[in-house]
Amino acid sequence: MNDQVQKELKRILNGRFSTSESTRANYARGEDTFDPVLSKAVVFPETNEEVSKVLKLCNQHKVPVVPFGTGTSLEGNVVGNEKGITVCLEKMNKILNVNVEDFDCRVQACVTKEQLNDYLREDGVFFPIDPGANAAIGGMASTSASGTMAVKYGTMKTVITGLTVVLPNGDIIKTGGRTKKTSSGYNLTNLFIGSEGTLGIITEIQLRLSPIPESIMSAVCHFPSLKMAVQTAQQVIQYGVPIARIEMLNKDQMEISINYSKLQDVKAVPTLFFEFHGSEVSNKENIKIVEEISNDNNGSSFKWAKDLEERNKLWKARWDVYYSVKALINNGRVYSTDVCLPISKITECVNFAEEQTKKLGLRAPMVGHLGDGNFHVLLPYDPTKKKTYHKIRDFSDLLIQKTLDLNGTITGEHGVGLHKKEYLLKEHGDNIPLMKIIKRSIDQNNIMNPGKIFDLN
Amino acid sequence: MNDQVQKELKRILNGRFSTSESTRANYARGEDTFDPVLSKAVVFPETNEEVSKVLKLCNQHKVPVVPFGTGTSLEGNVVGNEKGITVCLEKMNKILNVNVEDFDCRVQACVTKEQLNDYLREDGVFFPIDPGANAAIGGMASTSASGTMAVKYGTMKTVITGLTVVLPNGDIIKTGGRTKKTSSGYNLTNLFIGSEGTLGIITEIQLRLSPIPESIMSAVCHFPSLKMAVQTAQQVIQYGVPIARIEMLNKDQMEISINYSKLQDVKAVPTLFFEFHGSEVSNKENIKIVEEISNDNNGSSFKWAKDLEERNKLWKARWDVYYSVKALINNGRVYSTDVCLPISKITECVNFAEEQTKKLGLRAPMVGHLGDGNFHVLLPYDPTKKKTYHKIRDFSDLLIQKTLDLNGTITGEHGVGLHKKEYLLKEHGDNIPLMKIIKRSIDQNNIMNPGKIFDLN
Repeated sequence: MNDQVQKELKRILNGRFSTSESTRANYARGEDTFDPVLSKAVVFPETNEEVSKVLKLCNQHKVPVVPFGTGTSLEGNVVGNEKGITVCLEKMNKILNVNVEDFDCRVQACVTKEQLNDYLREDGVFFPIDPGANAAIGGMASTSASGTMAVKYGTMKTVITGLTVVLPNGDIIKTGGRTKKTSSGYNLTNLFIGSEGTLGIITEIQLRLSPIPESIMSAVCHFPSLKMAVQTAQQVIQYGVPIARIEMLNKDQMEISINYSKLQDVKAVPTLFFEFHGSEVSNKENIKIVEEISNDNNGSSFKWAKDLEERNKLWKARWDVYYSVKALINNGRVYSTDVCLPISKITECVNFAEEQTKKLGLRAPMVGHLGDGNFHVLLPYDPTKKKTYHKIRDFSDLLIQKTLDLNGTITGEHGVGLHKKEYLLKEHGDNIPLMKIIKRSIDQNNIMNPGKIFDLN
Repeated sequence: MNDQVQKELKRILNGRFSTSESTRANYARGEDTFDPVLSKAVVFPETNEEVSKVLKLCNQHKVPVVPFGTGTSLEGNVVGNEKGITVCLEKMNKILNVNVEDFDCRVQACVTKEQLNDYLREDGVFFPIDPGANAAIGGMASTSASGTMAVKYGTMKTVITGLTVVLPNGDIIKTGGRTKKTSSGYNLTNLFIGSEGTLGIITEIQLRLSPIPESIMSAVCHFPSLKMAVQTAQQVIQYGVPIARIEMLNKDQMEISINYSKLQDVKAVPTLFFEFHGSEVSNKENIKIVEEISNDNNGSSFKWAKDLEERNKLWKARWDVYYSVKALINNGRVYSTDVCLPISKITECVNFAEEQTKKLGLRAPMVGHLGDGNFHVLLPYDPTKKKTYHKIRDFSDLLIQKTLDLNGTITGEHGVGLHKKEYLLKEHGDNIPLMKIIKRSIDQNNIMNPGKIFDLN
């Protein structure tokens, strides 16, 4: 990137452009296992038109571009580029409109899930996609995120009906629309969802919202073994109970969360967190079924979170799982796996993960969105100690192979980033030529987040 | 297509190749408004490998290819190509596997929705996408179909988790997988869903199934005016009632259906068909709410379909709507509109359609999947009378403009085909350059269903 380009960027962005080392370091990685990589500059656009001008200029001069939201991604998706710029969207954080009667809204890319839900609260609707972090909705679109409520409300793919995207050549396009369904030409919306900033920059998102349920009931249930807990979740889903959340924490993770989040009245044993959304009558009916299934698997009696405050505390502990593990080691990092399986295979795979981590002598807190067959092993380590990292990666390799053998996927919700490129080859090696054809046709100069998801050459 | 290619096709397909006029005429169009166009030949592959060899050969010789399923598409999507071949997939009609415990299955492209549901019945699961016709699942994937139950179960986009696709160059790729969610690379599955055979041939579909609900209750409710019926549907959705079906038939359509399907005890007035899926307790609770809303809009008391037979008769009448309208005119055709709107706009748009058809003196039976904001005006005409057709197209133009003004889409579930190309330009003109880039990059020789969705040049 020559001086002329820098000067031009500064002009386009009215000075919202920084080459200071501290700023560049602030936007050099997400919450991942990678060492920071400082881009040459960080820019802060405020409008679609500014993003367009930035990309057009970068495309002309073949300057790599890394889009950046809240930096909560876990797979190296936003690690900087030493020859390029990072485009931070944090100034594009406006809720553009809300149509309560149609359960939809449009937001700019850096509106976060909590910001949106705070805004919506009085309207009786909410945004149901709930990853651990308070992520930007644009970033969540880019990784096809989901989280604790996907079992009832789906993933970003389910709730996004349209996007504004700035293409590498500077074209601003508006895909999809406001309707619940459409068959109007190629599904460009879903091409950009999950493309991790490699095809363009998502600047606006059109979202479907859900009505806040009449009744929400949360409960905690302890189990004598992880197997029993996982089996319970599996049976609840196979029974077809319309549950809103069914989250697993293993013994290790419970210990860590009890300390970090100062949880009271919960034991450090394998645990399921349940939540039911519906009418009071239907919730009670469903709870009865789930209690019976838990009982059959030697679960404890349900401990109810009775009011909003208690419920929020419970879920806060769940959301903080990543940070609780990170806090175990000074300047530590967390390697998070993200496999997802057909529900009938989840018990086998969780057992496998437990055995293998034990065998390798790794501390292995685990959490799972078991309703979707998705679970994470959170492996804390000291980045200065390469040996532990290698052991962790060995475990990860084994888990990926096991998952693929069981018809699972290498990533349920975090994306590929830098971290899972070789795993993507294992899962979808046959499809990568087509992915590359699409990438090359839209981003001829390979400026968009190069090196993420797959290597082009 | 020269003799050499014909000879080679015959060899590849072991004789399942026809150039007879009667066969070519049988596969020359769908259930649309177009005159038949006879392809040079029709071929009947049985395996992915045969489809691959056919496409590879056609690509080498730049022979256009039209994929064909059950021929129930409504927009000219499968109209033949006089320089090319039609690839009919009717011999690829096997259910490959069913995993009841995971609620999933894999089928070949020409398995129909009824065939699959008959097969699944004893397993306690079902395939919930329910268009009017007994369509092939591959065709439903190609047009991104939905139907009467989308309000609860979503569309083909919701239930498909993976595909086998044969690309124009003959490559066979397997996209997606069996898991409920994945963030593993570009979402190729959704690129092919709704691409109407212009990017490749879908040969296998991986589907999510749903548990058959404990209780299903259907009811019919009459209204003094169409406006009241539509308003009721709108309010039911806005209230957040988890209804499985909410279908509207206007006075005209009721008259036609009563005659065609020999319905008893129903009046020829604007009518809503409701269906509730859930436990008996939750159904009763939801019915109470819906009955109250209907009452407030001067709806009649609910008439219940008490047993399976009565319920099936009710829905059979609904499915037969297209054929009932077609039967009105000897050798007649039906022009079906397919607009879809945000739910708050549906009353205004249905009223507009009623007023405009009256003004133009057109008979206009209407049906609507009102829960999704999607409705069809079914306009019967004699294809030898050009004047009526032009009047219909004028009405269609007006309806499309009104729909776009109200933030709707030109097609909720039928696709674009030949019929809506100019409307696609109005809705997504800005996106068509990108659609063309993708088309050109995957299908360099433009052999796949050329001229459908958009004109490439």
